[in-house]
Amino acid sequence: MSHDLDTFAATANALADVAGTVIRPWFRTSVGIDDKADESPVTIADRTAERVMRAVLAERHPDHAILGEEFGLHAGNSDWQWTLDPIDGTRAFITGRPTFGTLISLSHAGTPVIGVIDQPITGERWIGVAGRGTLFRPGFGSLAAPHVIRTRACASLAQADLSCTAVEMLEDAPRPTWKQLKAAVHRVSWGGDCYAYGLLALGQIDVIAECTMKPWDWAALVPVIEGAGGRVTDWNGQILRADGDGTVLAVGNPALLDAAVSCLKE
Amino acid sequence: MSHDLDTFAATANALADVAGTVIRPWFRTSVGIDDKADESPVTIADRTAERVMRAVLAERHPDHAILGEEFGLHAGNSDWQWTLDPIDGTRAFITGRPTFGTLISLSHAGTPVIGVIDQPITGERWIGVAGRGTLFRPGFGSLAAPHVIRTRACASLAQADLSCTAVEMLEDAPRPTWKQLKAAVHRVSWGGDCYAYGLLALGQIDVIAECTMKPWDWAALVPVIEGAGGRVTDWNGQILRADGDGTVLAVGNPALLDAAVSCLKE
Repeated sequence: MSHDLDTFAATANALADVAGTVIRPWFRTSVGIDDKADESPVTIADRTAERVMRAVLAERHPDHAILGEEFGLHAGNSDWQWTLDPIDGTRAFITGRPTFGTLISLSHAGTPVIGVIDQPITGERWIGVAGRGTLFRPGFGSLAAPHVIRTRACASLAQADLSCTAVEMLEDAPRPTWKQLKAAVHRVSWGGDCYAYGLLALGQIDVIAECTMKPWDWAALVPVIEGAGGRVTDWNGQILRADGDGTVLAVGNPALLDAAVSCLKE
Repeated sequence: MSHDLDTFAATANALADVAGTVIRPWFRTSVGIDDKADESPVTIADRTAERVMRAVLAERHPDHAILGEEFGLHAGNSDWQWTLDPIDGTRAFITGRPTFGTLISLSHAGTPVIGVIDQPITGERWIGVAGRGTLFRPGFGSLAAPHVIRTRACASLAQADLSCTAVEMLEDAPRPTWKQLKAAVHRVSWGGDCYAYGLLALGQIDVIAECTMKPWDWAALVPVIEGAGGRVTDWNGQILRADGDGTVLAVGNPALLDAAVSCLKE
């Protein structure tokens, strides 16, 4: 299994490389206003990036299943499934913010064991592999090798930095308890999509609570954050499942999980 | 005056260079939780960056006044005043987001005539000079020369991308009319601080409406956005003033200004 994980982690990196190559030329090329309309730059980049990733997987691991945001499920012939979101953070991409990301995950019998958060514009990349420390490639032109990162040992919610992508997302939450969590923390900041989860893994943010999340939004986050010492669950503190309620709760310090779940209860 | 502006624009670039040199080493070095407490990384970076900028100005333009967020007003002996905000976007900086910025502006008799939005981590820089096209240095390791940028000709609010840094900011607005503007636009995105205004100048965002803004938050934005073809006013559509109500409204297409002001009325 460890040998397999080395091979599959190399594949995950290759997928991020090809996706970034496709996505970068479309960044900040939007000339009009569109909302995932056909032929918009974000749609072309999204679909092409998923196609190239699927082509690499078909060549390297033809027996693996693939679930992608754009083209759905390709059934496999093994316990392995890749989950792909070429552009997580459509609004960020459309508005020219380099905080969208490419999410790549490999699950074994339903459990995410490899996760990549890639930022094609800044060059930052987070790579989590089950049982290993999460690696971070710092980007921004740095030639430094990827290094192991750790979350921050924030001691209490009262000292915690909370983050959420958009207030509109919370209007579709299963219960209106996010405001209780917000009231309990030190400070909140907005925006970020998957980038915020990478910052949590880096020890810059302590808590993220979001909802309306699909498996391709969260599968890659689990190995990245847990390999850095944090925890990712739903708002009830339960393990994330493809048939869950779409809520996601991430904490840098696992000791904060119970307190955060209490805030998010009815 | 044009010769002066060339000289002063070179100074503005030099200020951004020295500020970035001071700020970069402190990015993502936060080890604990602080709120602008003494000796926190953001406070050290903020104050040191303002000190080095003031030192450069004292050498090059000793008769100019300086207003800085950290150290207040240094009276001058001319009609020229520099306005400095070393780190606009404290929360972004603290949470490791590369969307904070250094804001540098030069006003003549109260009117901003030079503005710089600098992003020390990505290398992006926007430079606006009155009567000239705004220049953008693309950053992200690009060796391309700065080029003139233009806002986007978004035809109506119904097609517009609106942005705001944080929902909490709007709780302190002089009137609760932001939601009317939000209801009129196509889409909203969150976060960004000064970076969002840079994206508006680049034609990626169409409208920004914020409040609780001090002169060091907005002075640099005016030459950048107006030099790219946009407009910056208060929520009443009036020119921004140091003794104003702290509201700021920016539009990429000046033809949208009246409609946006109507939304923001009582």
